[in-house]
Amino acid sequence: MLADRPIVGIDLGGTKIGTGVVNVHGEVLVSDYQPTEAIQGQDAVIKRMIDAAHRVMAEGGVTVKDITGIGIGSPGPLDIPRGVLIDPPNLPTWRNVPLRQILQDRLGAPTYLENDANAAAIGEYLYGAGQGTRNMIYVTVSTGIGGGLILNGKIYHGVNGSAGEIGHMTIMPRGPHCGCGNRGCLEALASGTAIAREGQELVDRGVPTLIAEIVKDAPYSVSARDVVEAMSRGDAYATEIVRQAMYYLGVGMANLVNLFSPEMIVIGGGLSNLGSDLLDPVRRAIRLRAFPSAAEHVTVRPAKLGAEVGIIGAAGAALMAARKD
Amino acid sequence: MLADRPIVGIDLGGTKIGTGVVNVHGEVLVSDYQPTEAIQGQDAVIKRMIDAAHRVMAEGGVTVKDITGIGIGSPGPLDIPRGVLIDPPNLPTWRNVPLRQILQDRLGAPTYLENDANAAAIGEYLYGAGQGTRNMIYVTVSTGIGGGLILNGKIYHGVNGSAGEIGHMTIMPRGPHCGCGNRGCLEALASGTAIAREGQELVDRGVPTLIAEIVKDAPYSVSARDVVEAMSRGDAYATEIVRQAMYYLGVGMANLVNLFSPEMIVIGGGLSNLGSDLLDPVRRAIRLRAFPSAAEHVTVRPAKLGAEVGIIGAAGAALMAARKD
Repeated sequence: MLADRPIVGIDLGGTKIGTGVVNVHGEVLVSDYQPTEAIQGQDAVIKRMIDAAHRVMAEGGVTVKDITGIGIGSPGPLDIPRGVLIDPPNLPTWRNVPLRQILQDRLGAPTYLENDANAAAIGEYLYGAGQGTRNMIYVTVSTGIGGGLILNGKIYHGVNGSAGEIGHMTIMPRGPHCGCGNRGCLEALASGTAIAREGQELVDRGVPTLIAEIVKDAPYSVSARDVVEAMSRGDAYATEIVRQAMYYLGVGMANLVNLFSPEMIVIGGGLSNLGSDLLDPVRRAIRLRAFPSAAEHVTVRPAKLGAEVGIIGAAGAALMAARKD
Repeated sequence: MLADRPIVGIDLGGTKIGTGVVNVHGEVLVSDYQPTEAIQGQDAVIKRMIDAAHRVMAEGGVTVKDITGIGIGSPGPLDIPRGVLIDPPNLPTWRNVPLRQILQDRLGAPTYLENDANAAAIGEYLYGAGQGTRNMIYVTVSTGIGGGLILNGKIYHGVNGSAGEIGHMTIMPRGPHCGCGNRGCLEALASGTAIAREGQELVDRGVPTLIAEIVKDAPYSVSARDVVEAMSRGDAYATEIVRQAMYYLGVGMANLVNLFSPEMIVIGGGLSNLGSDLLDPVRRAIRLRAFPSAAEHVTVRPAKLGAEVGIIGAAGAALMAARKD
């Protein structure tokens, strides 16, 4: 049966390309990682993707005839119905690239394009923390904040695939500027970028925080990692920065509960390594701020799939799309 | 064909009950309005609903055998899968009332329960401003702010019908208190209640605004209507209050665009009578704050169905649910 066959998942990132053969249980049978080197131009990158797909299939002992299809998880913005990368900031010079069609033609198997956050959402839904739910929201909290919406058992795209920009909810209309051009976005208040900005500000102001100690060789490039390290060593300033960011993350998550009333919110991304320092404030905000009728039905869980989520999610996206076809 | 038959729509409100026979084109053939008089208790109210349903069917020349079913639009919170009113603030003393089953048993036709904002959303989607869309968000802006989400052509309920609490997105974490217990909800910043509160504050402070003149016989009960009247007579203070509320409404609507990427946002409720004083700031905020890939695909329109939206929406909800059965 076609639906039992493996899938090739390709996780196209700004810095690396992950490619794997994934079985219907979401297990990565073979994987391969290459640097993206976007600077070499789109033809070189596409060739690297195709070569990697051939390589993992050969290693896994399958041909294009044996697979359900190929899934690509890609940075946005995308036109998903058309399978086109519009103008991804992480892949400069790419403009309106019909990646789905190109890979389908060159590899000879049904190919599906999904944005990376949606692919991760599908991965967690089918094979990770969200298994068994029908309405699940995946949120990735790292340099930026992104997400994907599983509604009634399907990924929700909106008109052309732009839905789910969770990081760009305004939660403070006159708040800090965001990379997107707006102000007071969740991402500007609760992401790694926000934590780094607040840490930098303390260092610039000469506040006696451990962060200054940690970055003393490069005092103009405080990272979220530096702030978290200072927190783990007991620095009160760093702790307060993280606490505030997680407070705002909680506000955003409570908004999602009021809007979507999901069974589960799954939180992944680098900052989810904070564990209870992230999960507790989120759960608390939902309890305090969301309607009881929705809050009492939602659980908040850390993502489960780890580093391979990109490959697994891309494969899952292909599987979900193929089932719909 | 069953789907061509008329539907009985019942709009159960805190102050009145509207009942009508509605054809499949969303036209109200016969209608009837009764005071709710919730104070008389639930049995009296339910009897009034049943009597009204019999009356409109008789007047419309149909029996229960001729109709697709009965739709009830009701204030929430509801448990929609079970057809139960949990504890509606507008119907005090009602607790866990299985209204759907009661009316189905007593009237002898398939009966469906939907919350009033979702019913209005379905009405506008099937028969009003939202016709022809697949993803449409309905927002009602009056004393409170509510809404309904049409996603992929269906009303979206979340786990048990609690989804779509648009008015209770936090857009200012330390903002004014809201009736829901939270702070800085959209409703606390952009509703009729918010406008009245700001107007009251100016009057209390002795600011020389026309609002004070308008309410001089009852200076402790400023309403949104008073503020809007002062604005229409050129008062700068009142104008600023409304402008600020609509600015926040725009922030909330831009958030919906970033999350849902819908084709259309339809705005109804009493304050939608503001016309371009409401629509222009909303469109402007979407342009400024939402992602271009989503913003360029959305239109913002006033609701179309007018006073009968409750009856039409309740009937539409029954039709949509019956098609799914």
